[in-house]
Amino acid sequence: MKRKICIVVHSRANYGRVKTVMRAVAEHDDLELQLLVGSSALLHRYGAVIDIIRRDGFQEAAVVHSIVEGETPTTMAKSTGLAIIELSTHFDNLKPDVVLTVADRFETLATAVAASYMNIPLAHTQGGEVTGSIDESVRHAISKLAHIHFPATERAANYLLRIGEEADTVHLTGCPAIDLVAETDLTLPHDIFSRNRGVGEELNAQKDFIIVLQHPVTTEYGSGLSQIQETLEAVHPVAKEGMQVVWLWPNVDAGSDAISKGIRRFRELNETPNMHFYRNFSPEEYAKLLANARCIVGNSSSGLREGAFLGTPCVNIGTRQAGRERAANVIDVDCNAAEISNALAKQLKHGRYESSHLVGDGKAGRRIADILSKCEFRIQKKLSYISEL
Amino acid sequence: MKRKICIVVHSRANYGRVKTVMRAVAEHDDLELQLLVGSSALLHRYGAVIDIIRRDGFQEAAVVHSIVEGETPTTMAKSTGLAIIELSTHFDNLKPDVVLTVADRFETLATAVAASYMNIPLAHTQGGEVTGSIDESVRHAISKLAHIHFPATERAANYLLRIGEEADTVHLTGCPAIDLVAETDLTLPHDIFSRNRGVGEELNAQKDFIIVLQHPVTTEYGSGLSQIQETLEAVHPVAKEGMQVVWLWPNVDAGSDAISKGIRRFRELNETPNMHFYRNFSPEEYAKLLANARCIVGNSSSGLREGAFLGTPCVNIGTRQAGRERAANVIDVDCNAAEISNALAKQLKHGRYESSHLVGDGKAGRRIADILSKCEFRIQKKLSYISEL
Amino acid sequence: MKRKICIVVHSRANYGRVKTVMRAVAEHDDLELQLLVGSSALLHRYGAVIDIIRRDGFQEAAVVHSIVEGETPTTMAKSTGLAIIELSTHFDNLKPDVVLTVADRFETLATAVAASYMNIPLAHTQGGEVTGSIDESVRHAISKLAHIHFPATERAANYLLRIGEEADTVHLTGCPAIDLVAETDLTLPHDIFSRNRGVGEELNAQKDFIIVLQHPVTTEYGSGLSQIQETLEAVHPVAKEGMQVVWLWPNVDAGSDAISKGIRRFRELNETPNMHFYRNFSPEEYAKLLANARCIVGNSSSGLREGAFLGTPCVNIGTRQAGRERAANVIDVDCNAAEISNALAKQLKHGRYESSHLVGDGKAGRRIADILSKCEFRIQKKLSYISEL
Amino acid sequence: MKRKICIVVHSRANYGRVKTVMRAVAEHDDLELQLLVGSSALLHRYGAVIDIIRRDGFQEAAVVHSIVEGETPTTMAKSTGLAIIELSTHFDNLKPDVVLTVADRFETLATAVAASYMNIPLAHTQGGEVTGSIDESVRHAISKLAHIHFPATERAANYLLRIGEEADTVHLTGCPAIDLVAETDLTLPHDIFSRNRGVGEELNAQKDFIIVLQHPVTTEYGSGLSQIQETLEAVHPVAKEGMQVVWLWPNVDAGSDAISKGIRRFRELNETPNMHFYRNFSPEEYAKLLANARCIVGNSSSGLREGAFLGTPCVNIGTRQAGRERAANVIDVDCNAAEISNALAKQLKHGRYESSHLVGDGKAGRRIADILSKCEFRIQKKLSYISEL
Repeated sequence: MKRKICIVVHSRANYGRVKTVMRAVAEHDDLELQLLVGSSALLHRYGAVIDIIRRDGFQEAAVVHSIVEGETPTTMAKSTGLAIIELSTHFDNLKPDVVLTVADRFETLATAVAASYMNIPLAHTQGGEVTGSIDESVRHAISKLAHIHFPATERAANYLLRIGEEADTVHLTGCPAIDLVAETDLTLPHDIFSRNRGVGEELNAQKDFIIVLQHPVTTEYGSGLSQIQETLEAVHPVAKEGMQVVWLWPNVDAGSDAISKGIRRFRELNETPNMHFYRNFSPEEYAKLLANARCIVGNSSSGLREGAFLGTPCVNIGTRQAGRERAANVIDVDCNAAEISNALAKQLKHGRYESSHLVGDGKAGRRIADILSKCEFRIQKKLSYISEL
Repeated sequence: MKRKICIVVHSRANYGRVKTVMRAVAEHDDLELQLLVGSSALLHRYGAVIDIIRRDGFQEAAVVHSIVEGETPTTMAKSTGLAIIELSTHFDNLKPDVVLTVADRFETLATAVAASYMNIPLAHTQGGEVTGSIDESVRHAISKLAHIHFPATERAANYLLRIGEEADTVHLTGCPAIDLVAETDLTLPHDIFSRNRGVGEELNAQKDFIIVLQHPVTTEYGSGLSQIQETLEAVHPVAKEGMQVVWLWPNVDAGSDAISKGIRRFRELNETPNMHFYRNFSPEEYAKLLANARCIVGNSSSGLREGAFLGTPCVNIGTRQAGRERAANVIDVDCNAAEISNALAKQLKHGRYESSHLVGDGKAGRRIADILSKCEFRIQKKLSYISEL
Repeated sequence: MKRKICIVVHSRANYGRVKTVMRAVAEHDDLELQLLVGSSALLHRYGAVIDIIRRDGFQEAAVVHSIVEGETPTTMAKSTGLAIIELSTHFDNLKPDVVLTVADRFETLATAVAASYMNIPLAHTQGGEVTGSIDESVRHAISKLAHIHFPATERAANYLLRIGEEADTVHLTGCPAIDLVAETDLTLPHDIFSRNRGVGEELNAQKDFIIVLQHPVTTEYGSGLSQIQETLEAVHPVAKEGMQVVWLWPNVDAGSDAISKGIRRFRELNETPNMHFYRNFSPEEYAKLLANARCIVGNSSSGLREGAFLGTPCVNIGTRQAGRERAANVIDVDCNAAEISNALAKQLKHGRYESSHLVGDGKAGRRIADILSKCEFRIQKKLSYISEL
Repeated sequence: MKRKICIVVHSRANYGRVKTVMRAVAEHDDLELQLLVGSSALLHRYGAVIDIIRRDGFQEAAVVHSIVEGETPTTMAKSTGLAIIELSTHFDNLKPDVVLTVADRFETLATAVAASYMNIPLAHTQGGEVTGSIDESVRHAISKLAHIHFPATERAANYLLRIGEEADTVHLTGCPAIDLVAETDLTLPHDIFSRNRGVGEELNAQKDFIIVLQHPVTTEYGSGLSQIQETLEAVHPVAKEGMQVVWLWPNVDAGSDAISKGIRRFRELNETPNMHFYRNFSPEEYAKLLANARCIVGNSSSGLREGAFLGTPCVNIGTRQAGRERAANVIDVDCNAAEISNALAKQLKHGRYESSHLVGDGKAGRRIADILSKCEFRIQKKLSYISEL
């Protein structure tokens, strides 16, 4: 009997960070993949990641509709609640031996809560990392519910031990997102911009470009409109001077609507030459973009994680990544047009950085699958301090 | 403008552990109490605690129906999800300045998740304690979501610091449950048994009695029937020899149904002289019972918490309280009739223990209200280790 | 390819009224049974009908937990909402060709709403009947959503035509509940009372007995306690004089709690000789009881439906069955102890009535299965009056 | 004590059809308005109708988030379930004396189900009308749940009687949407196109234009993409020849996504001169547009309802309005580019029609408020046929 590993993919970010685990599980002799795709990964507004997943050859066991539309703090809570209700039904149907959940989003928490109460061993990646936003609280809460941990960095593994997780449940594997970057041919396809639809000016893969990706900070709900305004003001002049801008719409968190509105309003009031706005790229396409961008601007963790490995210059804005480990490629700035502008100029001048293996060496997926195939689980958790007594 | 403190009471155990906080908040010049009563506290099957709450002079702002009936792991997950959906609507209506949640149950987690995502400061009591069952995971997960902590014991406060909570958010106050015990006249009313309804033999307040209270252990779901069988086999002979037994039905956790079925089946197959089965007592009545009982048998934390203060001999069965701090009044045994029987005999012979202030000195409620009236909250959490860098 | 017929069983009443359809579908060459069991049919408090269903050889495709506990008008609404959420997930998994739903309860409405919006042809039994309570509104609402109707009586079929259902979608088949009664050996087993557990005095199958079954009337929510009081006052003296009473607990509708409380309180204050309170019987056992009872008292439709076929004297209390077709076996009374008492005396004196085929001839199950195997469905409904234009 | 009338507004169409009732209730001496705004009326994607409602001076008692995103048949069912759960909480808080719900959408059904089970008298507008799509089933189902009916036309009133509604509960008032049209100054503001944002060419209020509004037909789910394609093919040439096109995005029903995708894809592949795509207009602006448009094309009921009163030529496509009463202004066509094209040419040549009072005379709002202030409600419904017996 193969062990049934249920992996829940909820968003484009999720997918890139678990894809090599999915593949390693599907190919493993002793494991069977049960794939659930849910939440914003199903929605056209967020790029319908499910289409990419299917094109990649994965077949979902079921889809899980759980986004209560609104992108407010209240609907974020309600979406969490609905996701728990839905996921518990699917877990009942699939009867997985392990549920694996990724990182720190509200759907991740829902997955963790449903599995925990149903006595299903819970595996978790990206535990022990440090950031801002509500993700910070949620990530550690999930670690306290999880039965096995696959941290990406040494510091993260160490923090998991310090918060009381038992040593034999913490496995430093690196981040599967790095696997993907490491194994992808990073040459930029000449048609990458035309084959992905969006709105705005046509871009040219032969010419220089930067990436912008700025998500809402839920703990600063209400400031999204002014925050995105600062970034737009900093990036717009650079675009007008000829630098191409690949701008990605934000994720589904509370405040997303304000960010989108800010972008749309700016576009109505201004010409935006050299700027194009995309909903989504496949994980591999995104890796190629990151590998070839002159800089990444915003508050996405990809600038600090994949960016470190690729040596992509990064301007990291605001508190969303506060406390996160970083390599030399990052300049931190406040949410302020002048600061962003200066840092962007500095990064464009500097050019690429040396690659750092801070968040992984590219072999995480197989390591995780191997451990899942062998390890034993203790459903009853215990604070590690207790054994010191 | 008074600060609005929203307290959510979900069960009989909840109420006893937060009642003196509710009173202190209601009486505080700078605070306003917003009371939500939900979950099993509304249900006749669990003693309709809401009736007691109203008799005590508290008026709820709203009731929150969120129990998906079934008492299985799946319905426990679904009840958590539904509670999040419901509570977020109530928080939207009430717009509290702080939400206070008690201990480690699924409704507690739901409260914590809803408040967290809605950027409402979350206060938590009983953090840092250690037990078995799913409560162990959930309690620490809630601590990672909470913005202010009111631990009951020094060790608990210390553990909260060790899991990375920032020092200025951890306030050692003792447990409000001890306040109630300390301030109640503990004389046993002669009519305590007749004024509370239940099934079984009539009991006499003038004569000796023991208390039995055994909840399901959710992480051992499926073993409830045999577990309660062991306890029944150990207690029954003692009852037959004349010791009165005050038996309380279990709480609403997964497996509750099996425990209840075990008790009902035993009653059908056996005469149960001197045994009476109750749904509920008021917190004060329960304190009186505990103060006058010859022993408490089972796996309720009250044997280890209030029991420590009162010096009540306690036979603690199985893993549900594993790792919990305890005073001299406790004998731990496995879920095994012979062991339970021996320990019970030992405790009956020993008699009462000295009072221990391990979990509180009786002044927690006012301390908590005072701190809530003054403290400042940081919505953005941060692992304390970070400042060490 | 067999047509997949999804039948949803939600309660003990449901099961008896659809069992012969389930069997006929399961045995039909062109049909496949997809069984969902949910709601109170899963709950111990309501007799765990699922155990009987499994003992009868049916295997459910999934269980559906959807009862929000509380038995208030609010929780009845919430249970309907949750059932829609849950059932839509199961319909998505099972992809049935037809969904069949029974009668007029909130879970029935939930089934109808989920199937309708999902463009799954909806079959409905017991449409066109007339009663009181919210069931009256809900039954006709479901008929307006249903694509094919299997009414039990000629009047019901006629009413379906009058409310605008198209003639070719209305099939007069009789009620499957009558099939069961017609095919069961109605001899009363000597151990029927001892093999079913409950509370109260031991009953003797050799001696005379009456059945009492009184449900809450949701449209008169708040009157349940006084209503059950009247019935208890009328029945109690008869029991004291020696007539055995088989009393069944009420269903899960709003107000159920008040009825149960009324019964429990009465039992605490009075000796109840010759009375026994049961949660449930299997459909066949219930048929045997009805066939041998001296009278059925209360407001269950079984007195008017199965009772008509069996000629069992029936005292029908209050408005719950107002407007329902009835045979000669029924005496209607208000919710008033004196009236109930008089009518009961009259019925005991009268003895059994002639059998009436008003609600069916015993062949409904196979008829329904046959029609389901052949008929074509039009997803787009149309008021029949339109074609008259 | 004023009677509390709770009106639930879920969408832009809802609002226009109940606005004059809201005003009449708010201004009535004996009535108090309790406004709930929910569903797509909250969402930016559907024009954030709540902003218009607030600008019109109405203050909502609460917002109700209940859209499960996805626009599939499954999410439509789930949204209905979630809306019931949410609305029952709000009804519990507000304790209205009457709930009024509009027409035939899934949120309308949710409103009806919640109110019914909670024994709150339910008032319903637009009952008795006939159309295609799932709305047809749902509209009549709601009528069977409603306690008082305010039909818009004589035929509709007659149909309500025929489906068994009791005569004293059916009040022919006309449609409140006509009130709005009748009382609005229908002069087209010169800046109507610039003050409302959207995408596409700038339009000129001085020049001729047509309106296009095509919703998904849920009972034909899966055909949306080809259906919108036909309309685009018919309208596009007319636009290229100079006729301005005011195109509105579809509503939130299942299939909406396919319609939107069809429009977006068409825009990517074709120049669309003279075409502009809008999310929303205020009800008054929409009335002005309809009053001045050369034609309305699509399947919105507004072409047949407000269009009849205004004499606006209408090309009605497909089955969505099948069976609906219509005045002389409508030409029906299949979902076929050639047919649409011919009919559009014919209507442009014909010009405006005479006004018809088929769906109202402009005084519905006050009539409804008056009746609500005086009438008595019977919570227990009864099929009218019964009294014929």
